[in-house]
Amino acid sequence: MKMIIVGASGTMGSFLSKAFEKEHEIVRGDRHGMDVQVDITSPESIENMYKTTGAFDALICTAGPTFVGPWKNLTDKEFRQGVEGKMMGQINLVLIGQRYIKPKGSFTLITGALTDEPQRNFANASAANGAVEGFVRAAAIELENGIRINAVSPTVIENSPQYFPFFPGEIPTTMRQLEYGFRKSVFGAGTGQVIKTH
Amino acid sequence: MKMIIVGASGTMGSFLSKAFEKEHEIVRGDRHGMDVQVDITSPESIENMYKTTGAFDALICTAGPTFVGPWKNLTDKEFRQGVEGKMMGQINLVLIGQRYIKPKGSFTLITGALTDEPQRNFANASAANGAVEGFVRAAAIELENGIRINAVSPTVIENSPQYFPFFPGEIPTTMRQLEYGFRKSVFGAGTGQVIKTH
Repeated sequence: MKMIIVGASGTMGSFLSKAFEKEHEIVRGDRHGMDVQVDITSPESIENMYKTTGAFDALICTAGPTFVGPWKNLTDKEFRQGVEGKMMGQINLVLIGQRYIKPKGSFTLITGALTDEPQRNFANASAANGAVEGFVRAAAIELENGIRINAVSPTVIENSPQYFPFFPGEIPTTMRQLEYGFRKSVFGAGTGQVIKTH
Repeated sequence: MKMIIVGASGTMGSFLSKAFEKEHEIVRGDRHGMDVQVDITSPESIENMYKTTGAFDALICTAGPTFVGPWKNLTDKEFRQGVEGKMMGQINLVLIGQRYIKPKGSFTLITGALTDEPQRNFANASAANGAVEGFVRAAAIELENGIRINAVSPTVIENSPQYFPFFPGEIPTTMRQLEYGFRKSVFGAGTGQVIKTH
């Protein structure tokens, strides 16, 4: 299976790349360029990535920039980080990628528990997650040729302890749980699902 | 109670204005100007609206433009209708309005069943709704001075039969059910809730 992983240099993306590379052809995408360079905030950059990769079986995205910070600093301007990054970045990966993906292929996007379980400083992520999850359910009934789409929704990630203080009482998602969430989406038959890893 | 209704010339806004005007001071806001003119896609216009209205007890928004149309026509450009309109328009009404609203005041935004129950042609609304609902839950834990925030989520609206063909099998929300949803948000004590009218 030819699998594009966008955000491949990040905590999640690098783990998934290693987990899947034993059995699959992995194309590592990142904003600074790995196998392929992509800035998900730019539709042109996304189009160029797909032109480079050509047809593929699965797209995994673990890249989702948002504004993290005090509510009092949250204005339209800061909110755009999540709108352009985690929200439209991932939505455009699908809207554009559907013209390159093989029949019966799959898109798997990243959201998170903040959709339904907010924490202070993360309102931008809650909104972006909610948008992506609403989009995933809607896209699932529109995509053709057996193409599937799901979101994986972890809690705070085991390998990102710097975020633990912001998620009091949240049991971290282990890297293995995260991997299994993506396995369920990519290798299962479900579509329009939000796969919670916890 | 001084209540601003944004989208007051629309199907929902005009009904709610009439329902609440017997007992409350209603400030009708609309993009073409009624008591006050406001284009929710512009933070500057929102700021000007609040400067005109001054302090208030409740903000109701029933305005939520999105792109409605075939999936194959849905690109980043069309998607922006919902991003700027129903999503950021409503989010900015809160981010800016929190500096004008009275203590213990409330914001009530509009979403819809499409968040969880998609229909063809409405992926943009599903995403915008999801964003607003995620934001509402997050804002509820951030807003100070007892200020509350909820979303009202109707199905297709009784008085908008032109949409019925797009919502097969969907039992329409009656205007009275819609009114009760907003009553629950404005006059109840809940916050961070998505109030389903159906």
